[in-house]
Amino acid sequence: MAAVDLVVVGSVGIDSIETPLEKRSNLLGGSATYACAAASLFARAGMVGVVGNDFPAEFMESYRRFSINLDGLRQVAGPTFRWSGVYQQDFINRETISTELGVFAGFKPDLPECYRDAPFLLLGNISPELQLQVLDQIRRPRLIAADTMDLWIRTARPQLLDLVKRIDLLMLNDAEARLFTGRHNLCACAEALLELGPRHVVIKKGEHGAMLFSRRGTTILPAFPLPDPRDPTGAGDMFAGATMGVLAGRGQTGETDLRHAFAYGAVVAAFGVESFSLEGLTGLTRNKVENRLRELRGMIECGPV
Amino acid sequence: MAAVDLVVVGSVGIDSIETPLEKRSNLLGGSATYACAAASLFARAGMVGVVGNDFPAEFMESYRRFSINLDGLRQVAGPTFRWSGVYQQDFINRETISTELGVFAGFKPDLPECYRDAPFLLLGNISPELQLQVLDQIRRPRLIAADTMDLWIRTARPQLLDLVKRIDLLMLNDAEARLFTGRHNLCACAEALLELGPRHVVIKKGEHGAMLFSRRGTTILPAFPLPDPRDPTGAGDMFAGATMGVLAGRGQTGETDLRHAFAYGAVVAAFGVESFSLEGLTGLTRNKVENRLRELRGMIECGPV
Repeated sequence: MAAVDLVVVGSVGIDSIETPLEKRSNLLGGSATYACAAASLFARAGMVGVVGNDFPAEFMESYRRFSINLDGLRQVAGPTFRWSGVYQQDFINRETISTELGVFAGFKPDLPECYRDAPFLLLGNISPELQLQVLDQIRRPRLIAADTMDLWIRTARPQLLDLVKRIDLLMLNDAEARLFTGRHNLCACAEALLELGPRHVVIKKGEHGAMLFSRRGTTILPAFPLPDPRDPTGAGDMFAGATMGVLAGRGQTGETDLRHAFAYGAVVAAFGVESFSLEGLTGLTRNKVENRLRELRGMIECGPV
Repeated sequence: MAAVDLVVVGSVGIDSIETPLEKRSNLLGGSATYACAAASLFARAGMVGVVGNDFPAEFMESYRRFSINLDGLRQVAGPTFRWSGVYQQDFINRETISTELGVFAGFKPDLPECYRDAPFLLLGNISPELQLQVLDQIRRPRLIAADTMDLWIRTARPQLLDLVKRIDLLMLNDAEARLFTGRHNLCACAEALLELGPRHVVIKKGEHGAMLFSRRGTTILPAFPLPDPRDPTGAGDMFAGATMGVLAGRGQTGETDLRHAFAYGAVVAAFGVESFSLEGLTGLTRNKVENRLRELRGMIECGPV
């Protein structure tokens, strides 16, 4: 069993997605899927999750093509988690049509030995209770990031508050930051969230990019403009996965390193939303990522003061 | 009569504004007011507009403190244009409570001789018919920018189409760009707008900044993050005014110059929305603007690729 640089826990599922332009079903999805695939471009990433015995062999093959370590992925009797949703005209707001938890309902993360010394940990969007269970099994983490969502902010606030005390980096979107803090202004939201414990807070703003707030200062991360996005599912997970992958691959945890890694995250997520499922990341190379990163830099450059 | 570098036409009005935090009435407002004040930090700006005989002497004094050339501002019998509005929690969406056109209803712009050779022209948000009348009176413009709004897109599309053929730079917000083109994606909107004639299109996104689209490429202009905005009224006008002021003060019209000037626009607008009316621009110096511009640069910086 090979050691991994980064452990990623999250959902693994089979998605059916409708956008204003098209409809696709039986897609490989889930937060762990998107985050691990993005991270694997830069580091040895290991996945913690569960699938049912209906999980297609081709999906496992897809993970292997991304060189994702699967020692932490359990396959058990029962149906795999399934989600279907419809995106609105803005390609951001979406309606969930159905959620079938399947084997995910009984998920109890149990990390293989080769994951427990991993220095980097990404707690993808699952319940804070499960996120805490994973955190407890990691021996000496150097950097812990966690994502969350409105459901847990509403229904599991005490556990979420426990969690955010123990992580370095909290990632959530603008609506979630507002819900969590009861404030509207994003700078004010970030200030309130930093008070809860994490050293860094990332507020994701979809097509408008993201902002990284730390006690030392604020970083603006513009999104790469896309004329033709096809499927925004997993954008936040790919952003988080690529960011943590870059840090884990380099063994870096500093503020400047984080800013640098986030720029990679923004660019990888942009590739990801150009196609459904993992199609946008398939065949992606560091070279392609860095070319687009240079392009993004060029768009932000506005000359000397 | 002194020559001016930049002519600005727009509304001049007396505003009453309610935000989620406070309520203020009898404020100096209007698109020409905000744009000229912002431009005057960088260039000799002349205002084209009309006010009634109720226009307070202190407002005229305020213009003079900004060194705005007032040869093109007419004072006539009747009431000054008045607007009142209420901002929602997001400090972006607003409801107009009342609009009293007053002397603005009969406004026929007639440019003083000393304005007609001005090389830079900013057509603030008024009807395209009036914008065209001003344009016809300028003899040899080097750079013409125009702002517009949903009202004219809905009610004066033929005149607006005439106008955009004759300008270099069209500025509008994201909702207006979508309304004008019938597309949703902002890259697609910009492509459609560039087809109509202007060399450059700026799509403003409020707290998310703005984007500059040209045939040669795209520029992302992040907004300066503000923890405590007080009044967003005039933000777009200050952005446009400062941008055109920087260009007019330097006599520049190139693509790189434009990008550079826009960064100034973003920063000046951020100062402006920290207070009501022109309070945020009062006492503002180039030095303060450039310090904040350096701060904004620092926030976007994310290291080498």
